[in-house]
Amino acid sequence: MPTTDGSSPAAASVLAVLGVGVVAADSPVLRADDAAATRGDGCFEGCRLRRGPDGANAVDKLDAHLARMTRSADALAIPFDERAWRRLIAEAAAAWNSPDEAAVKLLLSRGTPTSGPTGFVLITPLSAESRRLRATGLKVITLARGLESGAFADAPWLLGGVKTLSYAVNMAAFREAERRGADDVVFLSSDGLVLEAPTASVVWSVGRTLFTTPTGATGILGGTTQQLLFERAATAGWTTAERLVTLDELQAADVIWLVSSVRGPVDVVELDGKPRTRHPDLDSEIRRLCGF
Amino acid sequence: MPTTDGSSPAAASVLAVLGVGVVAADSPVLRADDAAATRGDGCFEGCRLRRGPDGANAVDKLDAHLARMTRSADALAIPFDERAWRRLIAEAAAAWNSPDEAAVKLLLSRGTPTSGPTGFVLITPLSAESRRLRATGLKVITLARGLESGAFADAPWLLGGVKTLSYAVNMAAFREAERRGADDVVFLSSDGLVLEAPTASVVWSVGRTLFTTPTGATGILGGTTQQLLFERAATAGWTTAERLVTLDELQAADVIWLVSSVRGPVDVVELDGKPRTRHPDLDSEIRRLCGF
Repeated sequence: MPTTDGSSPAAASVLAVLGVGVVAADSPVLRADDAAATRGDGCFEGCRLRRGPDGANAVDKLDAHLARMTRSADALAIPFDERAWRRLIAEAAAAWNSPDEAAVKLLLSRGTPTSGPTGFVLITPLSAESRRLRATGLKVITLARGLESGAFADAPWLLGGVKTLSYAVNMAAFREAERRGADDVVFLSSDGLVLEAPTASVVWSVGRTLFTTPTGATGILGGTTQQLLFERAATAGWTTAERLVTLDELQAADVIWLVSSVRGPVDVVELDGKPRTRHPDLDSEIRRLCGF
Repeated sequence: MPTTDGSSPAAASVLAVLGVGVVAADSPVLRADDAAATRGDGCFEGCRLRRGPDGANAVDKLDAHLARMTRSADALAIPFDERAWRRLIAEAAAAWNSPDEAAVKLLLSRGTPTSGPTGFVLITPLSAESRRLRATGLKVITLARGLESGAFADAPWLLGGVKTLSYAVNMAAFREAERRGADDVVFLSSDGLVLEAPTASVVWSVGRTLFTTPTGATGILGGTTQQLLFERAATAGWTTAERLVTLDELQAADVIWLVSSVRGPVDVVELDGKPRTRHPDLDSEIRRLCGF
Protein backbone atom coordinates (compact mmCIF):
# COMPACT_ATOMS: atom_id res chain seq x y z
CA MET A 1 0.00 0.00 0.00
CA PRO A 2 1.55 3.33 -1.02
CA THR A 3 2.31 5.85 1.73
CA THR A 4 1.46 9.54 1.48
CA ASP A 5 4.66 10.32 -0.47
CA GLY A 6 3.98 7.60 -3.02
CA SER A 7 6.46 5.03 -1.72
CA SER A 8 5.65 1.61 -0.37
CA PRO A 9 6.12 1.01 3.35
CA ALA A 10 9.82 0.87 4.21
CA ALA A 11 11.27 -2.48 3.16
CA ALA A 12 13.72 -4.32 5.38
CA SER A 13 17.38 -3.71 4.57
CA VAL A 14 19.47 -6.51 3.08
CA LEU A 15 23.06 -7.19 4.10
CA ALA A 16 25.41 -9.64 2.36
CA VAL A 17 28.94 -10.12 3.70
CA LEU A 18 31.90 -11.06 1.51
CA GLY A 19 32.82 -14.69 2.09
CA VAL A 20 29.66 -15.28 4.12
CA GLY A 21 26.52 -14.31 2.18
CA VAL A 22 23.25 -12.77 3.35
CA VAL A 23 22.95 -12.16 7.10
CA ALA A 24 20.51 -10.16 9.24
CA ALA A 25 20.95 -6.51 8.27
CA ASP A 26 21.50 -5.38 11.85
CA SER A 27 24.18 -8.00 12.58
CA PRO A 28 27.49 -6.67 13.84
CA VAL A 29 29.87 -7.60 11.02
CA LEU A 30 33.06 -5.56 11.53
CA ARG A 31 35.68 -6.18 14.19
CA ALA A 32 37.01 -3.28 16.27
CA ASP A 33 40.36 -3.44 14.46
CA ASP A 34 38.85 -3.31 10.98
CA ALA A 35 40.62 -0.56 9.00
CA ALA A 36 37.29 0.70 7.62
CA ALA A 37 36.35 1.77 11.14
CA THR A 38 39.74 2.72 12.58
CA ARG A 39 41.23 4.54 9.57
CA GLY A 40 38.50 5.06 6.95
CA ASP A 41 40.84 2.84 4.95
CA GLY A 42 38.84 1.27 2.17
CA CYS A 43 36.56 2.28 -0.68
CA PHE A 44 32.91 2.13 -1.60
CA GLU A 45 30.29 2.60 -4.27
CA GLY A 46 26.77 3.94 -3.89
CA CYS A 47 24.41 2.48 -6.51
CA ARG A 48 20.71 2.38 -7.37
CA LEU A 49 18.70 -0.81 -7.48
CA ARG A 50 15.45 -1.17 -9.41
CA ARG A 51 13.09 -3.97 -10.27
CA GLY A 52 13.19 -4.54 -14.00
CA PRO A 53 10.24 -5.33 -16.31
CA ASP A 54 11.20 -9.01 -15.94
CA GLY A 55 10.57 -8.79 -12.20
CA ALA A 56 14.25 -9.17 -11.31
CA ASN A 57 16.13 -6.60 -9.24
CA ALA A 58 19.12 -5.06 -10.98
CA VAL A 59 21.79 -2.51 -10.06
CA ASP A 60 21.95 0.42 -12.49
CA LYS A 61 25.24 0.63 -14.46
CA LEU A 62 26.85 -2.06 -12.34
CA ASP A 63 29.79 -2.42 -14.74
CA ALA A 64 30.74 1.24 -14.31
CA HIS A 65 30.52 0.97 -10.52
CA LEU A 66 32.67 -2.15 -10.44
CA ALA A 67 35.19 -0.56 -12.81
CA ARG A 68 35.50 2.45 -10.50
CA MET A 69 35.73 0.21 -7.42
CA THR A 70 38.53 -1.71 -9.14
CA ARG A 71 40.41 1.57 -9.66
CA SER A 72 39.79 2.65 -6.05
CA ALA A 73 40.97 -0.71 -4.69
CA ASP A 74 44.07 -0.61 -6.93
CA ALA A 75 44.95 2.89 -5.71
CA LEU A 76 44.59 1.70 -2.11
CA ALA A 77 46.43 -1.59 -2.80
CA ILE A 78 43.50 -3.65 -1.49
CA PRO A 79 42.74 -6.92 -3.31
CA PHE A 80 39.39 -6.82 -5.12
CA ASP A 81 37.87 -10.00 -6.56
CA GLU A 82 35.31 -8.68 -9.02
CA ARG A 83 33.76 -12.09 -9.68
CA ALA A 84 33.17 -12.71 -5.99
CA TRP A 85 31.60 -9.26 -5.70
CA ARG A 86 29.28 -9.86 -8.66
CA ARG A 87 28.06 -13.04 -6.99
CA LEU A 88 27.56 -11.25 -3.67
CA ILE A 89 25.68 -8.37 -5.31
CA ALA A 90 23.42 -10.81 -7.16
CA GLU A 91 22.70 -12.66 -3.93
CA ALA A 92 21.85 -9.45 -2.09
CA ALA A 93 19.73 -8.07 -4.95
CA ALA A 94 17.71 -11.28 -5.09
CA ALA A 95 16.95 -10.91 -1.39
CA TRP A 96 15.52 -7.38 -1.78
CA ASN A 97 11.79 -8.04 -1.70
CA SER A 98 10.30 -4.62 -2.36
CA PRO A 99 9.18 -3.18 -5.72
CA ASP A 100 10.58 0.21 -4.66
CA GLU A 101 13.94 1.45 -5.83
CA ALA A 102 16.71 1.16 -3.26
CA ALA A 103 20.24 2.35 -2.44
CA VAL A 104 23.03 -0.23 -2.65
CA LYS A 105 26.31 0.34 -0.87
CA LEU A 106 29.33 -1.75 -1.83
CA LEU A 107 32.01 -1.40 0.84
CA LEU A 108 35.53 -2.84 0.63
CA SER A 109 37.88 -2.46 3.61
CA ARG A 110 41.55 -3.26 4.09
CA GLY A 111 40.13 -5.34 6.91
CA THR A 112 42.05 -6.55 9.94
CA PRO A 113 45.67 -7.60 10.39
CA THR A 114 44.61 -11.24 10.70
CA SER A 115 41.55 -11.51 8.42
CA GLY A 116 42.67 -9.52 5.39
CA PRO A 117 40.15 -7.51 3.34
CA THR A 118 36.54 -7.40 4.41
CA GLY A 119 33.50 -6.20 2.55
CA PHE A 120 29.77 -6.16 2.26
CA VAL A 121 26.76 -5.16 0.17
CA LEU A 122 24.06 -3.22 2.02
CA ILE A 123 20.70 -2.49 0.39
CA THR A 124 18.49 0.10 2.07
CA PRO A 125 15.26 1.87 1.08
CA LEU A 126 15.65 5.15 -0.80
CA SER A 127 15.66 7.86 1.86
CA ALA A 128 12.64 10.09 2.24
CA GLU A 129 14.99 13.06 1.94
CA SER A 130 16.26 11.95 -1.48
CA ARG A 131 12.66 11.55 -2.63
CA ARG A 132 11.76 15.00 -1.30
CA LEU A 133 14.78 16.77 -2.83
CA ARG A 134 14.17 15.27 -6.26
CA ALA A 135 10.88 17.17 -6.18
CA THR A 136 11.91 20.45 -4.56
CA GLY A 137 15.32 20.88 -6.17
CA LEU A 138 18.38 21.83 -4.12
CA LYS A 139 19.36 24.86 -2.11
CA VAL A 140 23.15 24.81 -2.36
CA ILE A 141 25.96 26.73 -0.65
CA THR A 142 29.59 26.86 -1.72
CA LEU A 143 32.31 25.97 0.77
CA ALA A 144 36.10 26.20 0.56
CA ARG A 145 37.77 22.79 0.21
CA GLY A 146 41.21 24.21 1.12
CA LEU A 147 42.95 22.54 -1.82
CA GLU A 148 44.24 24.13 -5.01
CA SER A 149 42.62 22.96 -8.23
CA GLY A 150 45.89 21.25 -9.24
CA ALA A 151 46.81 19.81 -5.83
CA PHE A 152 46.55 16.16 -6.86
CA ALA A 153 48.98 16.24 -9.80
CA ASP A 154 51.86 13.82 -9.13
CA ALA A 155 50.61 13.15 -5.59
CA PRO A 156 48.87 9.74 -5.69
CA TRP A 157 49.02 9.48 -1.87
CA LEU A 158 46.37 12.24 -1.75
CA LEU A 159 44.00 9.66 -3.30
CA GLY A 160 42.45 12.00 -5.86
CA GLY A 161 39.62 10.31 -7.73
CA VAL A 162 39.55 7.44 -5.22
CA LYS A 163 36.18 6.86 -3.54
CA THR A 164 37.59 6.20 -0.07
CA LEU A 165 35.67 5.69 3.15
CA SER A 166 37.32 8.83 4.60
CA TYR A 167 34.31 11.12 4.18
CA ALA A 168 34.34 12.99 7.50
CA VAL A 169 34.90 16.36 5.79
CA ASN A 170 32.14 15.63 3.26
CA MET A 171 29.75 14.86 6.13
CA ALA A 172 30.85 18.00 8.03
CA ALA A 173 30.12 20.03 4.90
CA PHE A 174 26.57 18.64 4.85
CA ARG A 175 26.12 19.63 8.50
CA GLU A 176 27.36 23.15 7.65
CA ALA A 177 24.81 23.31 4.81
CA GLU A 178 22.04 22.21 7.15
CA ARG A 179 23.14 24.81 9.70
CA ARG A 180 22.74 27.47 6.98
CA GLY A 181 19.35 26.17 5.84
CA ALA A 182 20.69 24.59 2.65
CA ASP A 183 20.44 21.06 1.25
CA ASP A 184 23.80 20.49 -0.36
CA VAL A 185 27.26 21.91 -1.04
CA VAL A 186 29.54 22.74 -3.94
CA PHE A 187 33.22 22.75 -2.96
CA LEU A 188 35.50 25.50 -4.29
CA SER A 189 39.29 25.20 -4.65
CA SER A 190 41.59 27.67 -2.88
CA ASP A 191 42.12 29.32 -6.29
CA GLY A 192 38.38 29.95 -6.54
CA LEU A 193 37.30 27.24 -8.97
CA VAL A 194 34.28 24.93 -8.84
CA LEU A 195 35.20 21.35 -7.85
CA GLU A 196 32.43 18.90 -6.92
CA ALA A 197 29.73 18.26 -4.33
CA PRO A 198 30.48 16.09 -1.27
CA THR A 199 28.68 13.11 -2.82
CA ALA A 200 27.76 14.28 -6.32
CA SER A 201 29.14 15.64 -9.59
CA VAL A 202 28.41 19.22 -10.66
CA VAL A 203 26.86 19.51 -14.14
CA TRP A 204 25.55 22.66 -15.80
CA SER A 205 24.09 23.70 -19.12
CA VAL A 206 24.61 26.75 -21.30
CA GLY A 207 22.40 26.54 -24.36
CA ARG A 208 22.78 23.01 -25.72
CA THR A 209 26.17 22.42 -24.09
CA LEU A 210 26.53 20.37 -20.91
CA PHE A 211 29.56 21.00 -18.71
CA THR A 212 31.14 19.24 -15.78
CA THR A 213 34.40 19.74 -13.86
CA PRO A 214 37.53 17.78 -14.87
CA THR A 215 39.01 14.85 -12.96
CA GLY A 216 42.78 14.31 -12.73
CA ALA A 217 44.85 17.01 -11.03
CA THR A 218 41.72 18.40 -9.35
CA GLY A 219 41.23 15.18 -7.39
CA ILE A 220 37.55 15.19 -8.43
CA LEU A 221 35.86 11.80 -8.46
CA GLY A 222 34.58 10.81 -11.90
CA GLY A 223 30.82 10.35 -11.56
CA THR A 224 29.27 7.24 -13.11
CA THR A 225 25.90 8.96 -13.65
CA GLN A 226 27.55 12.11 -15.04
CA GLN A 227 29.50 9.92 -17.48
CA LEU A 228 26.38 8.05 -18.56
CA LEU A 229 24.58 11.36 -19.00
CA PHE A 230 27.34 12.79 -21.19
CA GLU A 231 27.44 9.68 -23.39
CA ARG A 232 23.69 9.74 -23.92
CA ALA A 233 23.53 13.54 -24.26
CA ALA A 234 26.14 13.44 -27.03
CA THR A 235 23.85 11.19 -29.07
CA ALA A 236 20.84 13.41 -28.24
CA GLY A 237 22.26 16.53 -29.82
CA TRP A 238 24.15 18.03 -26.89
CA THR A 239 27.73 19.21 -26.90
CA THR A 240 29.59 18.11 -23.76
CA ALA A 241 32.74 19.54 -22.20
CA GLU A 242 34.84 19.55 -19.04
CA ARG A 243 35.64 22.97 -17.67
CA LEU A 244 37.20 24.61 -14.62
CA VAL A 245 35.04 27.65 -13.90
CA THR A 246 34.61 30.31 -11.27
CA LEU A 247 31.51 30.61 -9.13
CA ASP A 248 30.37 33.59 -11.27
CA GLU A 249 30.60 31.46 -14.39
CA LEU A 250 28.62 28.70 -12.69
CA GLN A 251 25.96 31.18 -11.60
CA ALA A 252 25.62 32.24 -15.26
CA ALA A 253 24.60 28.71 -16.36
CA ASP A 254 21.04 28.04 -17.52
CA VAL A 255 20.60 25.06 -15.18
CA ILE A 256 22.92 23.48 -12.61
CA TRP A 257 22.47 19.89 -11.44
CA LEU A 258 24.10 17.86 -8.70
CA VAL A 259 24.29 14.38 -10.15
CA SER A 260 24.70 11.18 -8.15
CA SER A 261 23.81 7.53 -8.59
CA VAL A 262 21.12 7.07 -5.97
CA ARG A 263 19.40 10.48 -5.85
CA GLY A 264 19.94 11.02 -9.58
CA PRO A 265 20.32 14.48 -11.17
CA VAL A 266 18.64 17.20 -9.13
CA ASP A 267 18.51 20.82 -10.26
CA VAL A 268 19.82 23.65 -8.09
CA VAL A 269 17.09 26.14 -7.19
CA GLU A 270 19.28 28.41 -5.05
CA LEU A 271 23.05 28.91 -5.04
CA ASP A 272 24.68 30.88 -2.22
CA GLY A 273 21.35 32.52 -1.47
CA LYS A 274 20.59 33.53 -5.07
CA PRO A 275 17.36 31.97 -6.38
CA ARG A 276 17.59 30.24 -9.77
CA THR A 277 14.83 29.85 -12.32
CA ARG A 278 13.80 26.22 -12.83
CA HIS A 279 13.58 24.93 -16.40
CA PRO A 280 11.22 21.94 -16.22
CA ASP A 281 11.66 20.88 -19.86
CA LEU A 282 15.46 20.89 -19.71
CA ASP A 283 15.38 19.25 -16.29
CA SER A 284 13.07 16.48 -17.48
CA GLU A 285 15.29 15.80 -20.46
CA ILE A 286 18.41 15.51 -18.29
CA ARG A 287 16.69 13.32 -15.71
CA ARG A 288 15.42 11.02 -18.45
CA LEU A 289 18.88 10.77 -20.02
CA CYS A 290 20.23 9.75 -16.58
CA GLY A 291 17.55 7.07 -16.26
CA PHE A 292 15.47 8.93 -13.66
CA MET B 1 59.64 -15.18 29.58
CA PRO B 2 61.19 -12.36 27.52
CA THR B 3 61.50 -12.85 23.76
CA THR B 4 64.64 -11.98 21.79
CA ASP B 5 63.65 -8.31 21.46
CA GLY B 6 63.11 -7.98 25.19
CA SER B 7 59.32 -8.07 25.17
CA SER B 8 57.10 -10.67 26.78
CA PRO B 9 55.16 -13.02 24.50
CA ALA B 10 52.31 -11.18 22.76
CA ALA B 11 49.46 -10.64 25.19
CA ALA B 12 45.87 -11.08 24.10
CA SER B 13 44.12 -7.90 23.03
CA VAL B 14 41.33 -6.47 25.19
CA LEU B 15 38.14 -4.97 23.77
CA ALA B 16 35.52 -3.08 25.77
CA VAL B 17 32.40 -1.77 24.03
CA LEU B 18 30.53 1.34 25.14
CA GLY B 19 27.30 0.35 26.86
CA VAL B 20 28.33 -3.32 26.95
CA GLY B 21 31.72 -3.80 28.63
CA VAL B 22 34.54 -6.23 27.91
CA VAL B 23 33.91 -8.72 25.09
CA ALA B 24 36.16 -11.09 23.14
CA ALA B 25 38.63 -8.91 21.21
CA ASP B 26 37.84 -10.54 17.86
CA SER B 27 34.07 -10.12 18.23
CA PRO B 28 32.33 -8.32 15.41
CA VAL B 29 31.06 -5.15 17.12
CA LEU B 30 30.12 -2.69 14.37
CA ARG B 31 27.08 -2.90 12.13
CA ALA B 32 27.44 -2.42 8.39
CA ASP B 33 25.70 0.95 8.59
CA ASP B 34 27.94 2.32 11.34
CA ALA B 35 29.24 5.73 10.25
CA ALA B 36 32.75 4.86 11.44
CA ALA B 37 32.94 2.27 8.69
CA THR B 38 30.83 3.88 5.98
CA ARG B 39 32.04 7.49 6.29
CA GLY B 40 35.08 7.58 8.61
CA ASP B 41 32.69 9.73 10.64
CA GLY B 42 33.91 9.71 14.21
CA CYS B 43 37.04 10.42 16.21
CA PHE B 44 39.68 8.53 18.13
CA GLU B 45 42.62 8.71 20.48
CA GLY B 46 45.73 6.56 20.52
CA CYS B 47 47.21 6.24 24.01
CA ARG B 48 49.90 4.31 25.88
CA LEU B 49 49.13 1.97 28.73
CA ARG B 50 51.70 0.95 31.34
CA ARG B 51 51.70 -0.99 34.56
CA GLY B 52 52.50 1.36 37.40
CA PRO B 53 54.68 0.66 40.43
CA ASP B 54 51.48 -0.21 42.33
CA GLY B 55 50.81 -3.05 39.88
CA ALA B 56 47.80 -1.29 38.34
CA ASN B 57 47.58 -0.55 34.62
CA ALA B 58 47.17 3.13 33.76
CA VAL B 59 46.79 5.16 30.57
CA ASP B 60 49.45 7.87 30.20
CA LYS B 61 48.06 11.44 30.30
CA LEU B 62 44.49 10.20 30.12
CA ASP B 63 43.09 13.64 30.99
CA ALA B 64 44.76 15.21 27.97
CA HIS B 65 43.46 12.47 25.67
CA LEU B 66 39.91 12.80 26.99
CA ALA B 67 40.08 16.59 26.68
CA ARG B 68 41.11 16.28 23.03
CA MET B 69 38.44 13.64 22.38
CA THR B 70 35.86 16.01 23.88
CA ARG B 71 36.98 18.72 21.43
CA SER B 72 36.91 16.27 18.50
CA ALA B 73 33.44 15.00 19.43
CA ASP B 74 32.18 18.59 19.82
CA ALA B 75 33.51 19.55 16.39
CA LEU B 76 31.77 16.52 14.89
CA ALA B 77 28.58 17.10 16.93
CA ILE B 78 28.72 13.58 18.39
CA PRO B 79 27.65 13.19 22.04
CA PHE B 80 30.56 12.18 24.29
CA ASP B 81 29.91 11.05 27.86
CA GLU B 82 33.32 11.41 29.49
CA ARG B 83 32.32 9.66 32.71
CA ALA B 84 31.06 6.60 30.84
CA TRP B 85 34.31 6.52 28.88
CA ARG B 86 36.43 6.75 32.03
CA ARG B 87 34.57 3.75 33.43
CA LEU B 88 34.99 1.81 30.18
CA ILE B 89 38.71 2.62 29.99
CA ALA B 90 39.22 1.51 33.60
CA GLU B 91 37.38 -1.73 32.91
CA ALA B 92 39.48 -2.45 29.82
CA ALA B 93 42.77 -1.50 31.52
CA ALA B 94 42.01 -3.84 34.42
CA ALA B 95 41.54 -6.68 31.94
CA TRP B 96 44.98 -6.17 30.32
CA ASN B 97 46.99 -8.93 31.93
CA SER B 98 50.51 -8.33 30.62
CA PRO B 99 53.32 -6.36 32.30
CA ASP B 100 54.30 -4.97 28.87
CA GLU B 101 53.28 -1.54 27.71
CA ALA B 102 50.39 -1.50 25.25
CA ALA B 103 48.55 0.70 22.75
CA VAL B 104 45.05 1.85 23.68
CA LYS B 105 42.64 3.05 21.02
CA LEU B 106 39.55 4.99 22.05
CA LEU B 107 37.10 5.13 19.14
CA LEU B 108 33.87 7.13 19.07
CA SER B 109 31.58 6.86 16.05
CA ARG B 110 28.43 8.70 15.03
CA GLY B 111 27.07 5.17 14.99
CA THR B 112 23.98 4.04 13.13
CA PRO B 113 20.71 5.80 12.32
CA THR B 114 18.89 3.64 14.88
CA SER B 115 21.50 3.04 17.61
CA GLY B 116 23.07 6.47 17.95
CA PRO B 117 26.77 6.83 18.83
CA THR B 118 28.91 3.74 19.23
CA GLY B 119 32.37 3.36 20.67
CA PHE B 120 34.97 1.07 22.09
CA VAL B 121 38.33 0.79 23.84
CA LEU B 122 40.81 -1.59 22.19
CA ILE B 123 44.07 -2.49 23.93
CA THR B 124 46.73 -4.21 21.80
CA PRO B 125 50.39 -5.10 22.36
CA LEU B 126 52.95 -2.50 21.31
CA SER B 127 53.87 -3.35 17.72
CA ALA B 128 57.26 -4.88 16.98
CA GLU B 129 57.76 -2.09 14.44
CA SER B 130 57.31 0.66 17.04
CA ARG B 131 59.81 -1.12 19.28
CA ARG B 132 62.29 -1.43 16.40
CA LEU B 133 61.95 2.19 15.25
CA ARG B 134 62.51 3.55 18.76
CA ALA B 135 65.95 1.93 18.54
CA THR B 136 66.90 2.66 14.94
CA GLY B 137 65.44 6.16 14.60
CA LEU B 138 63.37 7.16 11.58
CA LYS B 139 64.07 7.53 7.89
CA VAL B 140 61.59 10.20 6.84
CA ILE B 141 60.42 11.59 3.49
CA THR B 142 58.44 14.76 2.92
CA LEU B 143 55.20 14.63 0.93
CA ALA B 144 52.90 17.37 -0.33
CA ARG B 145 49.63 17.58 1.60
CA GLY B 146 47.98 19.74 -1.07
CA LEU B 147 46.67 22.30 1.42
CA GLU B 148 47.92 25.82 2.08
CA SER B 149 49.28 26.47 5.55
CA GLY B 150 46.30 28.75 6.29
CA ALA B 151 43.61 26.61 4.66
CA PHE B 152 41.68 25.89 7.85
CA ALA B 153 41.09 29.49 8.97
CA ASP B 154 37.33 30.15 9.17
CA ALA B 155 36.53 26.73 7.66
CA PRO B 156 35.46 24.49 10.55
CA TRP B 157 33.92 21.97 8.11
CA LEU B 158 37.49 21.04 7.08
CA LEU B 159 37.87 19.63 10.62
CA GLY B 160 41.31 21.07 11.29
CA GLY B 161 42.68 19.85 14.61
CA VAL B 162 39.99 17.17 14.85
CA LYS B 163 41.29 13.61 15.22
CA THR B 164 38.77 12.03 12.87
CA LEU B 165 38.64 8.43 11.67
CA SER B 166 39.15 9.61 8.08
CA TYR B 167 42.82 8.67 7.83
CA ALA B 168 42.96 7.12 4.35
CA VAL B 169 45.39 9.78 3.08
CA ASN B 170 47.60 9.35 6.16
CA MET B 171 47.73 5.60 5.54
CA ALA B 172 48.46 6.13 1.82
CA ALA B 173 51.34 8.41 2.82
CA PHE B 174 52.80 5.60 4.95
CA ARG B 175 52.55 3.23 1.98
CA GLU B 176 54.35 5.79 -0.19
CA ALA B 177 57.10 6.03 2.46
CA GLU B 178 57.45 2.26 2.54
CA ARG B 179 57.62 2.18 -1.26
CA ARG B 180 60.54 4.62 -1.08
CA GLY B 181 62.33 2.66 1.68
CA ALA B 182 61.43 5.15 4.43
CA ASP B 183 59.69 4.71 7.79
CA ASP B 184 57.61 7.84 8.14
CA VAL B 185 56.46 11.09 6.51
CA VAL B 186 56.46 14.82 7.16
CA PHE B 187 53.69 16.63 5.27
CA LEU B 188 54.44 19.97 3.57
CA SER B 189 51.84 22.62 2.78
CA SER B 190 51.35 23.82 -0.80
CA ASP B 191 53.23 26.98 0.20
CA GLY B 192 56.23 24.88 1.20
CA LEU B 193 55.95 24.85 4.99
CA VAL B 194 56.38 21.98 7.43
CA LEU B 195 53.05 20.71 8.83
CA GLU B 196 52.96 17.41 10.76
CA ALA B 197 53.48 13.68 10.32
CA PRO B 198 50.51 11.42 9.46
CA THR B 199 50.24 10.23 13.07
CA ALA B 200 52.80 12.34 14.96
CA SER B 201 53.87 15.89 15.79
CA VAL B 202 57.09 17.33 14.37
CA VAL B 203 59.46 18.69 17.04
CA TRP B 204 63.00 19.99 16.48
CA SER B 205 65.78 21.56 18.52
CA VAL B 206 68.18 24.40 17.77
CA GLY B 207 70.54 24.88 20.70
CA ARG B 208 68.37 24.85 23.82
CA THR B 209 65.18 25.82 22.00
CA LEU B 210 62.50 23.26 21.11
CA PHE B 211 60.17 24.04 18.22
CA THR B 212 56.97 22.56 16.90
CA THR B 213 54.50 23.62 14.20
CA PRO B 214 51.45 25.72 15.13
CA THR B 215 47.87 24.45 15.28
CA GLY B 216 44.91 26.66 14.27
CA ALA B 217 44.77 27.81 10.65
CA THR B 218 47.22 25.08 9.63
CA GLY B 219 44.76 22.35 10.62
CA ILE B 220 47.56 20.60 12.52
CA LEU B 221 46.44 18.33 15.36
CA GLY B 222 47.78 19.42 18.74
CA GLY B 223 49.88 16.52 20.08
CA THR B 224 49.33 15.47 23.68
CA THR B 225 52.90 14.16 24.01
CA GLN B 226 54.37 17.23 22.32
CA GLN B 227 52.40 19.42 24.75
CA LEU B 228 53.60 17.44 27.76
CA LEU B 229 57.16 17.66 26.46
CA PHE B 230 56.99 21.42 26.05
CA GLU B 231 55.58 21.88 29.56
CA ARG B 232 58.30 19.76 31.12
CA ALA B 233 61.06 21.16 28.89
CA ALA B 234 60.18 24.71 29.95
CA THR B 235 60.88 23.76 33.56
CA ALA B 236 64.10 21.95 32.53
CA GLY B 237 65.77 25.02 31.05
CA TRP B 238 64.53 24.84 27.48
CA THR B 239 62.93 27.64 25.51
CA THR B 240 59.91 26.44 23.51
CA ALA B 241 58.25 27.98 20.47
CA GLU B 242 55.81 27.30 17.64
CA ARG B 243 57.13 28.08 14.20
CA LEU B 244 56.13 27.66 10.55
CA VAL B 245 59.37 26.76 8.77
CA THR B 246 60.56 25.63 5.36
CA LEU B 247 62.11 22.24 4.75
CA ASP B 248 65.57 23.89 4.60
CA GLU B 249 65.05 25.40 8.04
CA LEU B 250 63.95 22.02 9.38
CA GLN B 251 67.02 20.34 7.88
CA ALA B 252 69.18 22.91 9.75
CA ALA B 253 67.86 21.76 13.16
CA ASP B 254 70.17 19.93 15.57
CA VAL B 255 67.70 17.08 16.11
CA ILE B 256 64.24 16.39 14.66
CA TRP B 257 61.75 14.11 16.41
CA LEU B 258 58.41 12.68 15.39
CA VAL B 259 56.44 12.60 18.61
CA SER B 260 53.37 10.45 19.26
CA SER B 261 51.67 8.91 22.26
CA VAL B 262 52.29 5.22 21.69
CA ARG B 263 55.67 5.14 19.92
CA GLY B 264 56.92 8.17 21.88
CA PRO B 265 59.47 10.65 20.53
CA VAL B 266 61.76 9.10 17.91
CA ASP B 267 64.64 10.99 16.31
CA VAL B 268 64.93 11.38 12.56
CA VAL B 269 68.13 9.80 11.20
CA GLU B 270 67.47 10.60 7.54
CA LEU B 271 65.27 13.29 5.95
CA ASP B 272 64.56 13.18 2.20
CA GLY B 273 67.64 10.99 1.73
CA LYS B 274 70.01 13.23 3.72
CA PRO B 275 71.57 11.42 6.70
CA ARG B 276 71.36 13.22 10.04
CA THR B 277 73.82 12.93 12.92
CA ARG B 278 72.23 11.37 16.00
CA HIS B 279 72.69 13.16 19.34
CA PRO B 280 72.20 10.44 21.97
CA ASP B 281 72.43 12.78 24.98
CA LEU B 282 69.85 15.22 23.62
CA ASP B 283 67.67 12.38 22.43
CA SER B 284 67.75 10.67 25.82
CA GLU B 285 66.80 13.90 27.54
CA ILE B 286 63.80 14.45 25.25
CA ARG B 287 62.63 10.86 25.53
CA ARG B 288 62.86 11.05 29.33
CA LEU B 289 60.90 14.31 29.40
CA CYS B 290 58.18 12.59 27.35
CA GLY B 291 58.06 9.67 29.78
CA PHE B 292 59.85 7.19 27.50
